[in-house]
Amino acid sequence: MTSDVLDQLRDALGERVDTTPGALDGARADKSGHAASAPPVAVVHAASVADVQAVCRIATATGTPVVPRGAGTGLAGGANAGRGEIALSLRSMTRILEVRPDDLLAVVEPGILNGDLNEALAPHGLWWAPDPASRAISTVGGNIATGAGGLLCAKYGVVRDAVLALDVVLADGRLIHVGHRSVKGVTGLDLTSLFIGSEGILGIVVGATLKLTRLVPGAPRTIAATFPRGVRSAAQASAAVTAAGIQPAIMELMDTQSLAAVHALLGLAAPPVGAAQLTVQTDGPAAATEADEIAAVLRDAGGQVAVSQDPAEGERLLAIRRSMHPAMESLGRTLIEDVSVPRSALPAMFDEIARVEREYGIAIPTVAHAGDGNLHPNFIIPDGETDVPDQIWAAADDLFRAALRLGGTLTGEHGIGVLKKRWLADELGDDQWRLQRDIKRLFDPQGILNPGKVFP
Amino acid sequence: MTSDVLDQLRDALGERVDTTPGALDGARADKSGHAASAPPVAVVHAASVADVQAVCRIATATGTPVVPRGAGTGLAGGANAGRGEIALSLRSMTRILEVRPDDLLAVVEPGILNGDLNEALAPHGLWWAPDPASRAISTVGGNIATGAGGLLCAKYGVVRDAVLALDVVLADGRLIHVGHRSVKGVTGLDLTSLFIGSEGILGIVVGATLKLTRLVPGAPRTIAATFPRGVRSAAQASAAVTAAGIQPAIMELMDTQSLAAVHALLGLAAPPVGAAQLTVQTDGPAAATEADEIAAVLRDAGGQVAVSQDPAEGERLLAIRRSMHPAMESLGRTLIEDVSVPRSALPAMFDEIARVEREYGIAIPTVAHAGDGNLHPNFIIPDGETDVPDQIWAAADDLFRAALRLGGTLTGEHGIGVLKKRWLADELGDDQWRLQRDIKRLFDPQGILNPGKVFP
Repeated sequence: MTSDVLDQLRDALGERVDTTPGALDGARADKSGHAASAPPVAVVHAASVADVQAVCRIATATGTPVVPRGAGTGLAGGANAGRGEIALSLRSMTRILEVRPDDLLAVVEPGILNGDLNEALAPHGLWWAPDPASRAISTVGGNIATGAGGLLCAKYGVVRDAVLALDVVLADGRLIHVGHRSVKGVTGLDLTSLFIGSEGILGIVVGATLKLTRLVPGAPRTIAATFPRGVRSAAQASAAVTAAGIQPAIMELMDTQSLAAVHALLGLAAPPVGAAQLTVQTDGPAAATEADEIAAVLRDAGGQVAVSQDPAEGERLLAIRRSMHPAMESLGRTLIEDVSVPRSALPAMFDEIARVEREYGIAIPTVAHAGDGNLHPNFIIPDGETDVPDQIWAAADDLFRAALRLGGTLTGEHGIGVLKKRWLADELGDDQWRLQRDIKRLFDPQGILNPGKVFP
Repeated sequence: MTSDVLDQLRDALGERVDTTPGALDGARADKSGHAASAPPVAVVHAASVADVQAVCRIATATGTPVVPRGAGTGLAGGANAGRGEIALSLRSMTRILEVRPDDLLAVVEPGILNGDLNEALAPHGLWWAPDPASRAISTVGGNIATGAGGLLCAKYGVVRDAVLALDVVLADGRLIHVGHRSVKGVTGLDLTSLFIGSEGILGIVVGATLKLTRLVPGAPRTIAATFPRGVRSAAQASAAVTAAGIQPAIMELMDTQSLAAVHALLGLAAPPVGAAQLTVQTDGPAAATEADEIAAVLRDAGGQVAVSQDPAEGERLLAIRRSMHPAMESLGRTLIEDVSVPRSALPAMFDEIARVEREYGIAIPTVAHAGDGNLHPNFIIPDGETDVPDQIWAAADDLFRAALRLGGTLTGEHGIGVLKKRWLADELGDDQWRLQRDIKRLFDPQGILNPGKVFP
């Protein structure tokens, strides 16, 4: 069976079918730390829409699962390909087909890196606002498949807000175009949004019409605020900024442990013991006024505040936040979690994290996109463990349930993948869970599109 | 059968079941000019989620169609209820359940008017950005059901951008909650977006968690620009504003005929013969600068431009645009169309409208939300005709196809309803059309939710 699939793939796609051990092994994993237990049949490096259609036709004819894949930077195992599956890489489809400054849109292939796209858009005075922390290494198609967020979302939106239309290859190889090129459009059901964040289980995104934003003129202001009393006061301060009606572009929070780890990694002088940090950036015509207003709120909340109008100093301050992932990696293998809560619930969520740390006797260094209420608690996996130990999952389970109790969600921007599917029904409820699974079946009656992801 | 349904409804809902001739007759029509040929069985004035569930359970048990309905201000016949159907009015469910300035959200029942909601939000310094021209008379639930747009969309988004979560009663009476209260959330498929704009064919929205925006401080600037050379130069000027990278809050275009009609209705001095008009508003901290920049672009494009910083004068200028619907009504019964095109294609779309006017020998007064490319061509229905004559539909058909050729869409903000379903597959393509219809069947296997709307 497997050799028949391989023969058909090679007949149709020639050298774009890759069965080198390195490629097969690489396709088993993403950045979540989770990997499929065995390698896939092949990695197909699609170079065109027709290639993707050919793979889907063969997959349908032979009943072979297809796992679409971009740069493999996901954090939920959603792009991991295993035994008997075809890993369909879109990473080579990197063309920008159209940039229209007059219509504020671009049409791109899915494999282009977010950072590369934004570099190409900058000379037009444009950018695509979604900015996952992985933007230098993650693809636009992957951003769409996960419904990615990032640092700027409270002010500039998430992926869902920045996609006008999609070209999608269905399980059987048919190509459909959903959405529109105009700002408005309500013809029929909004399938564009349905595909965004669907993690490859409904169809394969082979093209995207993106809604662009004008580059924001002027230098941003950057505010660094240290909270000697720790993370709870930093969380209260960030909630106070939103409650005061001021909208920063970025508002990032680092707790005591993550701040110390990053300072150690970067060789910086150690921060005050027990201190947490907020890094805030304002931009646009009111950047200076807003920075002053935010600084006042943060001081009232107990912060030691410095405002900078030097872009280089701003980049340096944000680089501390951006070094979180390498800093965590320096502590060991980590499970990076991704709960999101209403902004007012941030202090309460940090209380819950502290409780889980106490009850399970573990450390959970946490950073948060405090401007939008999205937290990334990091669970350190003990040395020698190959998978996430049950005790860590028990702590994570406790933390997920706390987020749901606070009106939050299991995943703000990473997706369900394989790692969170056992909690999906807890958040959706059984009726909605069944409806969503039935939609999956409608798009993919044979169950060959990224099986075992999102739904069991 | 009908009497059995009525008995069951009365047993369950008592006096909320209305069979007075006035109520039955009113539920046949919306503001599109289209009406069902016969009245429905009853109008049920739901007062609670439980009422809606009771109606859906009876409808499912008896196989009776249910037509959900807000204030009946739709323009596509989507809420019109006819023979053998239950008109389920959500108009009495007007409570604001929660306003959270700290989380920038409100939880409301669907029957509250958009304008009433915004009046209640203003003391909190908040507003819900979607602003259909009908906002004083249309409900939030209706806005959600149609995926409504409005005047401010290019800058402040459409309904899809301003809803976090929905409570929905399914065809069989089960209640589900979709979406989240946090800024970010990617748990499972985005059913919230699927319900937005679904025109009552998938479920009945009984509650909404709305994403709010801070009121914009400071006085707006208003720019009135008259274009003596007519609508094409006004359309080119508006496209030039977007291409220049400036984002007005509002940019409305009136062609020669609509401008003349409104001036006549309001008793104002007649505008210059052949002139078209752009009314533009800027707001926020850069309002003054942006107004000056826009004024320069409009002058370069041949406009006679006046900028005002007096809010009362701004309101007076916008009132001219807002009088379009009464002005058209003064000309006779109209079919208000709703195509949307990429902004750069506005001049070409006005050329197409002029061509259709010539070829069919009819006048098509047109206004446009030029900031986002959404046009409302008005077809005047000759006196004595009870329905839209074939010749008008032929002209509209020609115009729809022109919009699609220009990369546009059949409907920017009014929806498909009954009036546009025959063109739906032309825009979606057969494969997508079938997928969408199958999703409808999945949510409503008996076909009792607003049957005959969107899909035949």
